[in-house]
Amino acid sequence: MKNAVSSRLSERTAEEVANAIYRPGMATFDDAALEAMCQLNEAHLVMLAEKGLVDRAVAKSLAAAIARIRAEGAGAIDLDPQFEDGYFAFENRLSAIAGAKDTGFIHTGRSRNDIGATLDRMHARNLCLRMMESLDKARAACAATALKHAETIMPGYTHLQPAQPMTFGYFLTNVASALSREHDKIAAVYDRINRSSLGAAAFAGTTFPVDRPRTAGLLGFDGIVEPCLEAVGSRDFVTELLWSATSTLTVLSRVAQDMYVFCTHEFSALTFPDRVAGTSSIMPQKKNMLALEYFRAAAGRSIGALTGALSSVKGSNYSIGLDSVREGIAEAWPSLDLFIDGMALLRLVFETATPDAERLKKRCYENFSTATDLADGLVRAHGLSFREAHHVVGGAVQRAIDAGLDAGGMTVEIINASAEEELGRALPIDARFVRDCLDPVRSVQARTTPGGTAPSEVRRMLEALETRRGKDAGLTKARREAVEAAAVRLRNAAEALAA
Amino acid sequence: MKNAVSSRLSERTAEEVANAIYRPGMATFDDAALEAMCQLNEAHLVMLAEKGLVDRAVAKSLAAAIARIRAEGAGAIDLDPQFEDGYFAFENRLSAIAGAKDTGFIHTGRSRNDIGATLDRMHARNLCLRMMESLDKARAACAATALKHAETIMPGYTHLQPAQPMTFGYFLTNVASALSREHDKIAAVYDRINRSSLGAAAFAGTTFPVDRPRTAGLLGFDGIVEPCLEAVGSRDFVTELLWSATSTLTVLSRVAQDMYVFCTHEFSALTFPDRVAGTSSIMPQKKNMLALEYFRAAAGRSIGALTGALSSVKGSNYSIGLDSVREGIAEAWPSLDLFIDGMALLRLVFETATPDAERLKKRCYENFSTATDLADGLVRAHGLSFREAHHVVGGAVQRAIDAGLDAGGMTVEIINASAEEELGRALPIDARFVRDCLDPVRSVQARTTPGGTAPSEVRRMLEALETRRGKDAGLTKARREAVEAAAVRLRNAAEALAA
Amino acid sequence: MKNAVSSRLSERTAEEVANAIYRPGMATFDDAALEAMCQLNEAHLVMLAEKGLVDRAVAKSLAAAIARIRAEGAGAIDLDPQFEDGYFAFENRLSAIAGAKDTGFIHTGRSRNDIGATLDRMHARNLCLRMMESLDKARAACAATALKHAETIMPGYTHLQPAQPMTFGYFLTNVASALSREHDKIAAVYDRINRSSLGAAAFAGTTFPVDRPRTAGLLGFDGIVEPCLEAVGSRDFVTELLWSATSTLTVLSRVAQDMYVFCTHEFSALTFPDRVAGTSSIMPQKKNMLALEYFRAAAGRSIGALTGALSSVKGSNYSIGLDSVREGIAEAWPSLDLFIDGMALLRLVFETATPDAERLKKRCYENFSTATDLADGLVRAHGLSFREAHHVVGGAVQRAIDAGLDAGGMTVEIINASAEEELGRALPIDARFVRDCLDPVRSVQARTTPGGTAPSEVRRMLEALETRRGKDAGLTKARREAVEAAAVRLRNAAEALAA
Amino acid sequence: MKNAVSSRLSERTAEEVANAIYRPGMATFDDAALEAMCQLNEAHLVMLAEKGLVDRAVAKSLAAAIARIRAEGAGAIDLDPQFEDGYFAFENRLSAIAGAKDTGFIHTGRSRNDIGATLDRMHARNLCLRMMESLDKARAACAATALKHAETIMPGYTHLQPAQPMTFGYFLTNVASALSREHDKIAAVYDRINRSSLGAAAFAGTTFPVDRPRTAGLLGFDGIVEPCLEAVGSRDFVTELLWSATSTLTVLSRVAQDMYVFCTHEFSALTFPDRVAGTSSIMPQKKNMLALEYFRAAAGRSIGALTGALSSVKGSNYSIGLDSVREGIAEAWPSLDLFIDGMALLRLVFETATPDAERLKKRCYENFSTATDLADGLVRAHGLSFREAHHVVGGAVQRAIDAGLDAGGMTVEIINASAEEELGRALPIDARFVRDCLDPVRSVQARTTPGGTAPSEVRRMLEALETRRGKDAGLTKARREAVEAAAVRLRNAAEALAA
Repeated sequence: MKNAVSSRLSERTAEEVANAIYRPGMATFDDAALEAMCQLNEAHLVMLAEKGLVDRAVAKSLAAAIARIRAEGAGAIDLDPQFEDGYFAFENRLSAIAGAKDTGFIHTGRSRNDIGATLDRMHARNLCLRMMESLDKARAACAATALKHAETIMPGYTHLQPAQPMTFGYFLTNVASALSREHDKIAAVYDRINRSSLGAAAFAGTTFPVDRPRTAGLLGFDGIVEPCLEAVGSRDFVTELLWSATSTLTVLSRVAQDMYVFCTHEFSALTFPDRVAGTSSIMPQKKNMLALEYFRAAAGRSIGALTGALSSVKGSNYSIGLDSVREGIAEAWPSLDLFIDGMALLRLVFETATPDAERLKKRCYENFSTATDLADGLVRAHGLSFREAHHVVGGAVQRAIDAGLDAGGMTVEIINASAEEELGRALPIDARFVRDCLDPVRSVQARTTPGGTAPSEVRRMLEALETRRGKDAGLTKARREAVEAAAVRLRNAAEALAA
Repeated sequence: MKNAVSSRLSERTAEEVANAIYRPGMATFDDAALEAMCQLNEAHLVMLAEKGLVDRAVAKSLAAAIARIRAEGAGAIDLDPQFEDGYFAFENRLSAIAGAKDTGFIHTGRSRNDIGATLDRMHARNLCLRMMESLDKARAACAATALKHAETIMPGYTHLQPAQPMTFGYFLTNVASALSREHDKIAAVYDRINRSSLGAAAFAGTTFPVDRPRTAGLLGFDGIVEPCLEAVGSRDFVTELLWSATSTLTVLSRVAQDMYVFCTHEFSALTFPDRVAGTSSIMPQKKNMLALEYFRAAAGRSIGALTGALSSVKGSNYSIGLDSVREGIAEAWPSLDLFIDGMALLRLVFETATPDAERLKKRCYENFSTATDLADGLVRAHGLSFREAHHVVGGAVQRAIDAGLDAGGMTVEIINASAEEELGRALPIDARFVRDCLDPVRSVQARTTPGGTAPSEVRRMLEALETRRGKDAGLTKARREAVEAAAVRLRNAAEALAA
Repeated sequence: MKNAVSSRLSERTAEEVANAIYRPGMATFDDAALEAMCQLNEAHLVMLAEKGLVDRAVAKSLAAAIARIRAEGAGAIDLDPQFEDGYFAFENRLSAIAGAKDTGFIHTGRSRNDIGATLDRMHARNLCLRMMESLDKARAACAATALKHAETIMPGYTHLQPAQPMTFGYFLTNVASALSREHDKIAAVYDRINRSSLGAAAFAGTTFPVDRPRTAGLLGFDGIVEPCLEAVGSRDFVTELLWSATSTLTVLSRVAQDMYVFCTHEFSALTFPDRVAGTSSIMPQKKNMLALEYFRAAAGRSIGALTGALSSVKGSNYSIGLDSVREGIAEAWPSLDLFIDGMALLRLVFETATPDAERLKKRCYENFSTATDLADGLVRAHGLSFREAHHVVGGAVQRAIDAGLDAGGMTVEIINASAEEELGRALPIDARFVRDCLDPVRSVQARTTPGGTAPSEVRRMLEALETRRGKDAGLTKARREAVEAAAVRLRNAAEALAA
Repeated sequence: MKNAVSSRLSERTAEEVANAIYRPGMATFDDAALEAMCQLNEAHLVMLAEKGLVDRAVAKSLAAAIARIRAEGAGAIDLDPQFEDGYFAFENRLSAIAGAKDTGFIHTGRSRNDIGATLDRMHARNLCLRMMESLDKARAACAATALKHAETIMPGYTHLQPAQPMTFGYFLTNVASALSREHDKIAAVYDRINRSSLGAAAFAGTTFPVDRPRTAGLLGFDGIVEPCLEAVGSRDFVTELLWSATSTLTVLSRVAQDMYVFCTHEFSALTFPDRVAGTSSIMPQKKNMLALEYFRAAAGRSIGALTGALSSVKGSNYSIGLDSVREGIAEAWPSLDLFIDGMALLRLVFETATPDAERLKKRCYENFSTATDLADGLVRAHGLSFREAHHVVGGAVQRAIDAGLDAGGMTVEIINASAEEELGRALPIDARFVRDCLDPVRSVQARTTPGGTAPSEVRRMLEALETRRGKDAGLTKARREAVEAAAVRLRNAAEALAA
């Protein structure tokens, strides 16, 4: 039996080939994929007609047929893997409607290669916009909660040991700043995505005088990818988009890790409402923070998808190939969808995280996290060098711990016992000095240098971050609208052709 | 509104949580998953009844209800993500049939944790068997084609430059040997997979005197995973199975890479029938070997799935968590399915690969790939040290190339011109000696040391490999039958209970 | 100027090539590498002499020269990258000592390809043994500490929320079991590593009647890798060894993650002596558990090395190539060294981890981690179904929390308030029943089913694990001794040749 | 014995900890690292003096001591791992020279955390500049060779099967375009790297009124990283730089893959001079293109380094930790060095690649790669639809192959035999039409649409690419000079302080 799509090949595609290679691709050809396919064909057809590369009558017949295919939906397309891919399946339906003769003209001056690349760009473009839109909401929630807790004192940690006091607002301000930076990475990919590959044909351009900028404009692209081998043989824009998602999720996995620990019974620093938690089938008391574990897993999964794409593309030939443009990046697409779902969850997490302010402030009084402030105080008030002060306080903390005391039990006597050992002399300090130095509220407020913990500084940073976010959101909105406006113009042009 | 599954939680699960976390898992709960769920519950129920941990009447009612659920199929289960996962959805249906009171007894002495681990083990077990079964067929095809071409001379390559002659059969014998080794890796995982986690409960065991070996036996396991935290908190058997698939595919990506190059127009060394090839929408002459590209991509994808799983599990807490046991390894499952599809394609590739014997033999006469044999000949017949002979021949090859000659043009004169330069003297060689040394057929036949290219040695190795394959297939078959026999016994026991 | 090692090539290697490709390899040619190179050449020489493939006098001269090279050490070798690699640098020194003529005979019947593969196998073999030896010590320390704390009650967690009581000994018993399994993975690789590639020559075997089993025996291998292309063109044994290390470290990263959290000020569950901790340059109170962070990083690094090796090898040609056998796996070697350093650190961690037994037991009385036991008690004593009991207890816990009570405050009244709501009736329970059910010591002791938390069960499992460890250590020792005994025999044979 | 650096810790660091954690870091403290450490301390000191935070006399003494340390070189620093890291080792030397009292003041208002982050930024900045500088040279070589071969006809491939003719210049123009895009990715990281973390202290800022912008300016940074937790707790700029290197190398691995195949004996499309090639120890005829294999491996290794870094950072706590900022990214640094070496090799590859123009043109006449042009011709001249033309030509090619003919043997008769079958009629074509359509030179020249193969289009694109490269190089140069100018200013300021 003859091959379904080629006169060069004399056999039908083997079942094993169809199963492993063509069937999975066919399975993803849904209504959204069909819509993009229709748009692409309309844009090409409009251009062919404008350039006189196809007869008016043929163009009219094809435009009408495409409109009908759109109306029928993907369900009307025969997705037999013998057609190899969605394009040939679409052409088959087009042929059934418009006749083989007319349909034969639609493929003038192009190839499945540039079609595939262009469809991938349209899909990636939409994902990129959705990523920025969903991230924007999470950033807003993060900043809002940060502002609310600009004065909510809590221990800050390094190596997960109490280090110095901070506020929950300060913590989230840092997160908001990181997310602003991650947004920039995603946004930068858009420029590389939103350029058309159409008209690059197989990889060498075409002998027909197609108008690449025109089809690009009709499809809402900002321009074209010029050299045609690059235009069809690379999906680096997908890998880069996946990188930007992976980078963002890696940051978030760290934030989630901290919040996860903060939610433990032992920390009891953060709580979430029951609707954000999971339960147990056997342990009646359980309330589990799956929503935070999720981000640890999400980062790992995204790392895997990125690695798989890079590893597949690596060493592929520098042109079209399954490894370079299709199977090799197959896992990238669902991974980007996951990112978007994850951002909705993230927004909820930021909106609902509630610190136990009282407990946290109390803890700061007990856990020696203001020891640095005491050392700083000794430097400032008593002329010690910082290293001397560091040793005096370090020794004092050790003495207190040995005596079973927490930071609240630190006294002039203990400090001076340490000073005697480290410096050979007592220091002229009093209880008030010690108490003031060890006060976490003072500690937080005193850090007013740029980027410090002081509530004033937190508020200043948040304001700047919100300004940035506003600009980012504005650009995203403008990009979204430009794509949508092009779609309207294209629809009008196609309808005019069919009329 | 109350939480659907816990009296501890006072709110319904938020949509964002349900979407990101519970919905994807629910979507995979198909008939196969339901069957495993029914088996697991039947085994637990039979054991509870045997140990007197549940009333006979209750057991009867529950056994009948499970039988009915199986008959209804997965379509009858309400997969609302508010139920969190397939188990609670199943329990909900059980409750609707058998009543809440009786259903309440089914969960005695267990947890979703050990249920999930056990279901994953049943699923991984089946995948592991299918991997070995499909690999077995590919190994058989590889060996059969190798045997057929034990004397089909072709150039062997290092760094993709002609190195020494070999045969296509020799090439495939090496592949068959590699696949035999890879099979061993897959088979070794089975022992670690096929042990039951049931009865480990949440991670600490249970206060009910459950009989873990009994449920293990009813479910076809070879034993139990003893320490209960390990039994529920680790999916290392999935990662290891994925490792074995990745290792195999990485080898195959290399074999495919060579065959892919062999299929080029320029090499024209291998051909495949049209049914194994793909075509182009624009270039009428095309016949593309997608089936070989597929394996390059498949290895990359499997590397990605493995990396993603490891990276997710890494740093998770040492107990049950989304990252350690569920979301974190989500991409492993489809990746293992892909492996199985890939093996069917591989078998077809091995069955249909056809070397162009004449062209390949001719090429061996031209491409200097017997230069080593000439050097060896000089060592043996004329007492040169190997390094001297190497230099003489190297210089002679350079002279021939400079003169625009191929290996067929190599003469006594050229060799001796090089010998004069390298050794300061001509060698007493004649044209026949040169011709014999450069004969690729002799070259291949002369390598009779263990593992060499000689057809006799190739046949000896293939025989040994087929013996090994036979033993491997026998073990796989025995394992498959043991699982199936247990399923029959379990069904009988469950029916007896329901009767 | 002529090429330093080939008469075929007429130019010296370009600096850019030498720098990027040859220099890094030369930089690792140290005394250990030289020793292996000497052994390999001695074994080959002994075999050549025995088979009459080299003159006795030549053999004697070469044996003496090798002995001298060993005595001189790597410092005497000219590691000019123009020599391409260690073997040619070695041959150059051999030539300087024994003369070019005699040296020319050493390379009969072999190639750099089989030399390189064999040296890699000798190196991997030693690493594999050291991995098992260092892991053995860590396993012993883990089991010893586990035994010591078989009755040290502490909360067990799922999702890092208190779940059910366990003991620190139980926790470590699970770890010891996991490490036992990981050991098996490492040990399984040894069989695939310890086979000789020598005599496979370039990839096709050789026309000289070399005795491959003999050189294998002289070098302490358990046999040969038969098919010669496989023997030289694959480093899958390195990747697999790296996999086994990565798998082990991934498990350990999880254990470290838990212990890291246990060491926080808030958990205060575990402490370590000061010598295991790090400090801060600015915060005088700090004591940081870098030693635990280390294992999280180590797993990530090992995942990276594995991914890099797989990704490099993927798609390489199925023969010798930089990507398949050298540069592509370059990062595997230092990664395996890191594993061994890590095991020494791990042993120290297990030896010095000290739980705060009093605090932990107290916490179990407060954190509702015996809620499951209460539900179990209601099932056993009062005929409730487990699901009913689960709901009653879940509601009671919620009531207690709402009233600001911990588990110690749970009363008959609270439970019955919940029972009224869930079941419509109060239960005939008394305070003693409640207290007994909620007692964590009873809870732990009651889990006597296989793999449960009961101290008796922990001790039984530890005994079995220690038996297994003893057998493992015995096999490792026997393998080590076999390699060393072969080295002695080889030395004797080489000395006899030189005499 | 006391801890070397803390009064809080009462024991020396254990050997196992020192070996695994501190020793490797100490081993990388070379003269370059010392120079950066001196600069950083000078900048901090100048600022402290300017702000009156340290006595003039103390500042003078410390400035002089730092100058002396620089002069002594790294060899004079005691790198005992008991000092934990390079900073404490430096402070120890400073103390030996300037005395403990004065030295104690240098650490005012900072921490090892911000020091480490700032040093990493200085190092990454230099690597980023060197990456762009070395890439620039490779881009220039690529473009120059492309221009030289704008008319050198060769087959273009998809799926490594002859597809349509192109030129070697066209091929390289696509590569140059891709490298231009990759440059943009690297350059974008610079902005995120070149901002100062100094003054962020432990993560919370400091109570001393340090001037962060001032130290930033003195160290040549373009600004500061504001929020202090981000400033010290993230090394995302390293991961991103590694991503940009990995992305570039992944593209290059594909280009290398094609060129590697082009260099085979069978393709004989490209040759390289002997100085770029490697040889064999056994096969005298060999000339191996290791320099191209290198890039396949380099991409794999870079993927591994990136994965390792991401995987280590993933799930680390959101603050300073070994996994987030040190051990976790340890392999990134050497990987970036490798990139730079690779670019030098790449430049050489581009400079020396020589296509065999005659052979390649001839091949285009034989391999049916102009079949598309024939189909296009039928569309244009004879009104067929493209799909009809595609089928006619596909059938004709199949007929020619069945008759043992190559493209040169394609006749009007063969074409019309196919047309009869496909269309039911012969076409009014003549031999000249067929010959013209199948002429590869015409084929290449006819593709003048944007990005097509026409030499005119190639030259136009190359000109634009060279303009872009010039601008890129200009920015890199300006950035390099800004860093160097700052270093001069800092040196002057430090000398003024010491005077």
